[in-house]
This record gives sequence, structure tokens and C-alpha cells, in this order.
Amino acid sequence: MTSTSATQDSYPYQNEPIWSRSEKAIARTAFDVALKRELQEVIQETKQMANQINEPADLWDLEHYLTQRRKEIDRKYEYKYSQLTHVFGRLLHEQRLCEEELRGLREDKLTSIRSFAKFLSEDAAA
Amino acid sequence: MTSTSATQDSYPYQNEPIWSRSEKAIARTAFDVALKRELQEVIQETKQMANQINEPADLWDLEHYLTQRRKEIDRKYEYKYSQLTHVFGRLLHEQRLCEEELRGLREDKLTSIRSFAKFLSEDAAA
Repeated sequence: MTSTSATQDSYPYQNEPIWSRSEKAIARTAFDVALKRELQEVIQETKQMANQINEPADLWDLEHYLTQRRKEIDRKYEYKYSQLTHVFGRLLHEQRLCEEELRGLREDKLTSIRSFAKFLSEDAAA
Repeated sequence: MTSTSATQDSYPYQNEPIWSRSEKAIARTAFDVALKRELQEVIQETKQMANQINEPADLWDLEHYLTQRRKEIDRKYEYKYSQLTHVFGRLLHEQRLCEEELRGLREDKLTSIRSFAKFLSEDAAA
């Protein structure tokens, strides 16, 4: 093993931002709030779909909806500091969080978050 | 290929009962009635479960319930004449059909159906 690769192995995340203790607290709260909102939305939608079930096919539509939403939420809400700017960027883009709720994060992180949100919005519009 | 195996190939179901046209009509009606009842039961249970959802875990319980019921119903309702005495035996055992609804089937079929229902009841009690 060369010394270069050894260095890369030791510092695989050297370009990633460091999260201070107060930033971690802000991030955790914002993350939990967004997740709770999204789950609440699924609960409301499920109750509404169930109310409107008239025939068997509606049952399997509801099953499919729940499976899709569960998988999507599992993928979306990944609480890893290495992923959080992307997670928050997506939540901003989906309007599940507002910038106000991320106040207190360092400006470099907010810039990354906004930049990813903008990328997703442009991608969706394309 | 010997003549014996050729005979077996030609009459693979030679020991199975033949269903007359009127028996087929009775079977189809009974089958459809039981399936409709069972699906109606799932619809009612789904609406009730959805009404009682309070937290996210309840959502995934409902998803799981729907998946299980769909698979179970798919397995149970197999409309093949070679399987129908077992299908009806199970529906009798589960009290989803009563014997009255099978009236008009030949006695040998009713005997097979009752016999399988009895086997399942004894098996469940063991």
C-alpha cells in the first residue's frame, strides 16, 4: 500500500463539513420535524383512501401506496452527517422544511443545502 | 415411450370427478359469493384499522395486513376443477360457505368437500 492510499483511507471524509454540537441539535430537530410532518401526511392520506374504498381493487391500491411511501421515506430520511446537506436540500425543495428551520447552521452548509434544493427544482422543471 | 406412460399422459386426471354443466354453474356462483364475502370483510377491517391509526407504526401494520390478506386470498381462491373440492372444503371449514350453497353438486363431490373440511377442523383443533 502506498502512503497516498493510506492517507486517503485514513481521511475518507476530509472534504466534508464538520457539524458542531449546536448544529447537530438544530439538524436533529429539523430532521425530526420534517419526518413527523411527512408521516402525518401519509396518515391523513391513508385515512382518506380507506374511507373511499368501494371495491377490492381500491384495497390493493392502498397497499401499493403504503409500500411506495414507506420505501420512499426510508430512502429519503437518512440521518448521516455525510448526507445531511442533501437530505435538507431535498426537504427544502419539497417544501417540507423552510430555511427558517435550519437557522443556526453555518453558512457553508446552508449554501450547500440551497444549492442542492435549486438543482432539484431545476431538474424537476426540465 | 411405453404404452402405459402414453396412457398416463393422455389421462392425467382420470381419477378426478367430472363436473357437469349445472355443477359448474353452482360451483362458480358459490366460489364468487365466498370471494366477495371475504373481500368485503377485508374492506371493513381496512376501514376500521385506518380509522384507528394514531402513529406511523399503525400505517405499516395496515400495509402488512393488506399484503398478507392479498397473498392468502390469491392462494385460497384457485378456480381449477382439479382443486375445487379442496377449495370448497376450506371455505366450509372457515364458514365462508354453508353446505346449502353447494346444493346440487353430486354426492361424491360433497363427500370429498365435507371430508376435507373435517380434516382441516381436526387439524386446527390438534
